[in-house]
Amino acid sequence: MQASTDSSLALDGEADEPAPAARTRRDFLRRGVAAGGLLAATAAVRAAPAANVMPSPAAAAPADAPLEIPAWTRAPGAATGAQLYGQPSAFEKKVVRHLRPNDKQYISSSTRSPLQELDGIITPNGLFYERHHGGVPAIDPAQHRLAVHGLVDAPLLFTMDDLRRFPSESHIYFLECSGNPGYSVYGKTAAEANGLVSCAEWTGVPLRTVLAEAGVQPKAKWVVAEGADAAAMTRSIPLEKCLDDALLVYSQNGERLRPEQGYPVRLLLPGFEGNMSIKWLRRLHVTDSPVYSREETSKYTDLMPDGTARRFTFYMEAKSIITAPSGGQRLAQHGFHEIRGIAWSGRGKIARVEVSVDDGATWHQAELQSPVLSRAITRFRFPWKWQGEPTVIQSRATDETGYVQPTLEALVAVRGVNGTYHNNAITPWRVAATGEVTNARIKAS
Amino acid sequence: MQASTDSSLALDGEADEPAPAARTRRDFLRRGVAAGGLLAATAAVRAAPAANVMPSPAAAAPADAPLEIPAWTRAPGAATGAQLYGQPSAFEKKVVRHLRPNDKQYISSSTRSPLQELDGIITPNGLFYERHHGGVPAIDPAQHRLAVHGLVDAPLLFTMDDLRRFPSESHIYFLECSGNPGYSVYGKTAAEANGLVSCAEWTGVPLRTVLAEAGVQPKAKWVVAEGADAAAMTRSIPLEKCLDDALLVYSQNGERLRPEQGYPVRLLLPGFEGNMSIKWLRRLHVTDSPVYSREETSKYTDLMPDGTARRFTFYMEAKSIITAPSGGQRLAQHGFHEIRGIAWSGRGKIARVEVSVDDGATWHQAELQSPVLSRAITRFRFPWKWQGEPTVIQSRATDETGYVQPTLEALVAVRGVNGTYHNNAITPWRVAATGEVTNARIKAS
Repeated sequence: MQASTDSSLALDGEADEPAPAARTRRDFLRRGVAAGGLLAATAAVRAAPAANVMPSPAAAAPADAPLEIPAWTRAPGAATGAQLYGQPSAFEKKVVRHLRPNDKQYISSSTRSPLQELDGIITPNGLFYERHHGGVPAIDPAQHRLAVHGLVDAPLLFTMDDLRRFPSESHIYFLECSGNPGYSVYGKTAAEANGLVSCAEWTGVPLRTVLAEAGVQPKAKWVVAEGADAAAMTRSIPLEKCLDDALLVYSQNGERLRPEQGYPVRLLLPGFEGNMSIKWLRRLHVTDSPVYSREETSKYTDLMPDGTARRFTFYMEAKSIITAPSGGQRLAQHGFHEIRGIAWSGRGKIARVEVSVDDGATWHQAELQSPVLSRAITRFRFPWKWQGEPTVIQSRATDETGYVQPTLEALVAVRGVNGTYHNNAITPWRVAATGEVTNARIKAS
Repeated sequence: MQASTDSSLALDGEADEPAPAARTRRDFLRRGVAAGGLLAATAAVRAAPAANVMPSPAAAAPADAPLEIPAWTRAPGAATGAQLYGQPSAFEKKVVRHLRPNDKQYISSSTRSPLQELDGIITPNGLFYERHHGGVPAIDPAQHRLAVHGLVDAPLLFTMDDLRRFPSESHIYFLECSGNPGYSVYGKTAAEANGLVSCAEWTGVPLRTVLAEAGVQPKAKWVVAEGADAAAMTRSIPLEKCLDDALLVYSQNGERLRPEQGYPVRLLLPGFEGNMSIKWLRRLHVTDSPVYSREETSKYTDLMPDGTARRFTFYMEAKSIITAPSGGQRLAQHGFHEIRGIAWSGRGKIARVEVSVDDGATWHQAELQSPVLSRAITRFRFPWKWQGEPTVIQSRATDETGYVQPTLEALVAVRGVNGTYHNNAITPWRVAATGEVTNARIKAS
């Protein structure tokens, strides 16, 4: 193939040239200010055509507020490059991860993504949820090593440079703690109720590539992954998952992993409970059976009503939550509101999200944001006209396997109330006549 | 539709239970250390099956380095929530935006994304490129207003709360400065050569929704957008673009826009040159002709060899660049290397990226990362076996319209050398026998 020809360089976008207009910048500004006055006098709220609900009314411009040149236009702003690594606006200081207050210790603890403040499907790295079992280690990547040993032909030890030389892949996947949200009624906000889930674009090496390099032996059935944190977090993973879509990840949303996400390298098991995606990964031990580590026996098992425990409950089942309007927010006016939320499933793609605005009596299909990606958060939206009636709003997700997100009552009927993990129940939000939104599972005091 | 039945709650992932294994955590650790010794003794480099080039060899474990428990495993790490808004590792301090040194002033200037350090397609907000014309204003969102006036039935004034109530959309789009990289030979690294491009998931209101609210009059043909920065950055935009895919954006990669990206609201014109996506947007003036602002007459026009100037050159044409290996990097060893890069086109999707590793003599099709999204960065990868030969590597993109990225020579033959903007030429990287990678357009001194 040849490089482009002249025709591919044809001048583009040359607009028809209007007659010369004697508009100076000063003219424009002056007319602009005049228009501001007009604007103040004539602003009006209009309905949009052909929508089953009205879009948001614009605020009428108050007559005493002409379109003044604001203070920040009158003097130069901060110099370019004042922050070579940028930070959020000072006006967004409240948008941070939620740390449960008054824990006894914060070495094995978590912070939650502020779901009610987020848009789209990507969680920015600074707000990605955390769950640590021995605190966050500060690992020098030049010193870090990853060992692959056990039932392999050739045990191997990798530096980070070694790992980065392998063929790489990037995928957008969610991660969710299996304890999101637990079975307690804790959760005034979407963050508190379900903030142990986030979504990012991950880049790394397919684990199958690294295992092929070591040569997995026929007897191998499990891979035991161990972290370099003080908990030496350890989980047994079925070999078939390791040979399927598991990744050794070194980057998240374009840049290197953050320390709290496993820097310099973590395991990423798409769709599996978050604790299995071992962070600060230092060892992969190929075995013929699980290792029965603490985190797959005394923790991360589900005690059932009959006294037995579900173990190795890997998959995070389909789930959704309305993030706006949600607990702690307030509908400031009657009329159009867009109900927004997120849905995800460890089993694949989200097929459908339904929304109820009448306490579960009727359900309506929400719009899903494209592209809908497997094992990624999917954003949904539903137009709602609220006329001040007290009600309960909620969403339920269906994934491509046909699985439907259950109510808490349905889930408890099967699982009982002894468990801590894998509560993927519907989150209902109560909307009061005042517009206040609260967690409908928490009884009013 | 009913909520899920018991069958949809069937216990999942219950693994066959192996016979009890008397493996304590202590046992496991001890065996692990022993395995480390084994590992040191037997580590080997193996070729992977059925690849046309070898994957990266793993480093052999040195015999004097058994798998010791590292220092960061021996003591608890930092407390969870020590950073409620997370930051990169201290070991990544060098990964920042590139600010061209020794500018005369930094009020109208730019910083570049460190492309050579990035993976995937999402640019994290802290590393998204900047281009400002009057510095970065610090705008209080509660005070900010957006006016829509001119040839409309009802001039309107919006608060940020008004805008956020409208139906929203999210899309992953690139943004690129039309001066990326200019026609100079500046550019030792990928950041310096082409770092005025980045990509993010943007959330906001379709501009057509807001214009419908105001009621665009039949004579309207252009919309003049004005920023609230000290430059009052002003550009005229064809009405058809405003009614097509233009967005009023308030969030980027999930969180609110950063100050340097137009907080609290910016225009986003997918595929158009970056300066038209007016930041800190305060005014949309609907008109019948362009306003001929400074930034579309004395700047952002292309002076041609015949003395005329191309104006209103909106679209960013197809382009690509290899980011690894790239200028300033070094191939530390012979053998397998994955060539990685990014491609994008303002006209739609990337159809194909070709890579040459022999100074343009032959070209090979690279793999494109899925999903390939319209007007978003697309990541490409190509496996390469380098045996120490000095050479030049380069990539060229073709978009879905069939347009092929030109060489600089082909571009200059048409456009001449007076222009500053719309240089979408191929970037060739020279690889020396030492493995050093440099910009092949810069002559060795």
